[in-house]
Amino acid sequence: MQGLTASCKIVLVMFLLGLGLAGATADSRRRHISSSPDEPCKKMTLYLHDILYNGVNNSANATAAPATKPTDLSTTHWSNGTFFGMLVVFDDPVTEGTALPIGQEEPAARAQGFYFYDKKESYSGWFSFSLVFNSKACRGTLNLMGADPMDAETRDFSVVGGTGDFFMARGVATIHTDATEGYFYFRLKMDIKLYECYV
Amino acid sequence: MQGLTASCKIVLVMFLLGLGLAGATADSRRRHISSSPDEPCKKMTLYLHDILYNGVNNSANATAAPATKPTDLSTTHWSNGTFFGMLVVFDDPVTEGTALPIGQEEPAARAQGFYFYDKKESYSGWFSFSLVFNSKACRGTLNLMGADPMDAETRDFSVVGGTGDFFMARGVATIHTDATEGYFYFRLKMDIKLYECYV
Amino acid sequence: MQGLTASCKIVLVMFLLGLGLAGATADSRRRHISSSPDEPCKKMTLYLHDILYNGVNNSANATAAPATKPTDLSTTHWSNGTFFGMLVVFDDPVTEGTALPIGQEEPAARAQGFYFYDKKESYSGWFSFSLVFNSKACRGTLNLMGADPMDAETRDFSVVGGTGDFFMARGVATIHTDATEGYFYFRLKMDIKLYECYV
Repeated sequence: MQGLTASCKIVLVMFLLGLGLAGATADSRRRHISSSPDEPCKKMTLYLHDILYNGVNNSANATAAPATKPTDLSTTHWSNGTFFGMLVVFDDPVTEGTALPIGQEEPAARAQGFYFYDKKESYSGWFSFSLVFNSKACRGTLNLMGADPMDAETRDFSVVGGTGDFFMARGVATIHTDATEGYFYFRLKMDIKLYECYV
Repeated sequence: MQGLTASCKIVLVMFLLGLGLAGATADSRRRHISSSPDEPCKKMTLYLHDILYNGVNNSANATAAPATKPTDLSTTHWSNGTFFGMLVVFDDPVTEGTALPIGQEEPAARAQGFYFYDKKESYSGWFSFSLVFNSKACRGTLNLMGADPMDAETRDFSVVGGTGDFFMARGVATIHTDATEGYFYFRLKMDIKLYECYV
Repeated sequence: MQGLTASCKIVLVMFLLGLGLAGATADSRRRHISSSPDEPCKKMTLYLHDILYNGVNNSANATAAPATKPTDLSTTHWSNGTFFGMLVVFDDPVTEGTALPIGQEEPAARAQGFYFYDKKESYSGWFSFSLVFNSKACRGTLNLMGADPMDAETRDFSVVGGTGDFFMARGVATIHTDATEGYFYFRLKMDIKLYECYV
């Protein structure tokens, strides 16, 4: 994590041979482009907690809720359904460890965006969201999107942009479903590696 | 604005010391990468006008309409609701000045995409859309996405791609809610700075 | 296609004068940035087949279904409607030729994501999706988004990121509606050109 809580300002993970700097100036921040998939300019591991509204009694704790119902395509094709077409909007806490924040504890970030289910034959989703960092140590956002075929052990999302402390970042986030509790909770481990940074 | 109506072809904002050019060739367009957050290769200010369908009598003027209703999570948690889960599709006029286009006047661009509300405790949104430029002076698109926590004075979206006159652009758009009229009109001031351009 | 079925690993389209390499190292993959719109580092042509659920009898073949219905804005403004606000979730086969896969034949990729209609006056859409490659020859994803004004002969989407064999890719996909059958089938020809590659 390289001290995310201390500061999330991007620092070089390692000093690279053949350093991929384009256009270094006297300015305090310089653009850094990694030259290889093995050499991110920033990496961190974060956990996303999705607590889905169950429609009954968890509205105080829920951080996500369906904005649409599954479509006929799902319900007519499979007797049990694969939620095809269900779109969920979320404002999920994101933590550095696996535990949910306790009491008034602030999470490391929030994940704000949506996902939906898009396959008839199995559970498969698609995500687009922002990681919103808003602490004294770390301000800014990372914007992500990608397919989530849940039967794969890990899936890759693209980090397509960043703002604030993550100004102009790009990279890849490798996702793993770390824990689930029935239909109404899942935790995603996100290994985020940035390959374009201003440092 | 650097003469957007005259031409939106990207021109260098200023001549940079330590110019961040990678791979210049004899071709007429060359890739330019800014070396610092203070030195965009292109900047412009535009205003987005969102006129939301009120469900009654403004369908002729409306440029946006809900595609989903707020979910139970919004309405059960707060008596007044924060529209959690309401997703709005829009085709909004975008102008260089603050005024709406008059009569048959063509806007500088259109913003086409969607936003939704995603927070229980306050008004907070998430946007993804294209700025579509389609005049003689300027053809092409910019694609944006990002979180919109409305209680912040300004918010940053990522410009994640571009086409046509904005071929392969990347950058940051700083958003400020410039004006609102009840629930059914808002105007966003967008300060767009591109840091990757082909010029 | 440069042998997509043989291998989709990115190879240089041509050897460029003034080669846009930033930070080449001893690593097997190096970052390549094109220096001109005429010189993509990778190009391919693919066909996306969207078979929309008709609500009656094609659930076995359908690969897409509406997750929302058109809004009042669409139905009140035009007697025949332009589907404003209708959002469709899809898991569409993607092929190298124009024909749909036969029987158990695997498509070259799947396109997973969504589109919606966003204009009152004419048919116009907006797409965001992943191309998911999952064969022995080719694994990885490309993530795309952009406006789709259907009255234009071709439209451009941004390729905003990539993973796996398309690690960190960016580019432009030019879209052409190649074929339609009533309301419930369309085929998009996608000319994809990548201008940022790791090769």
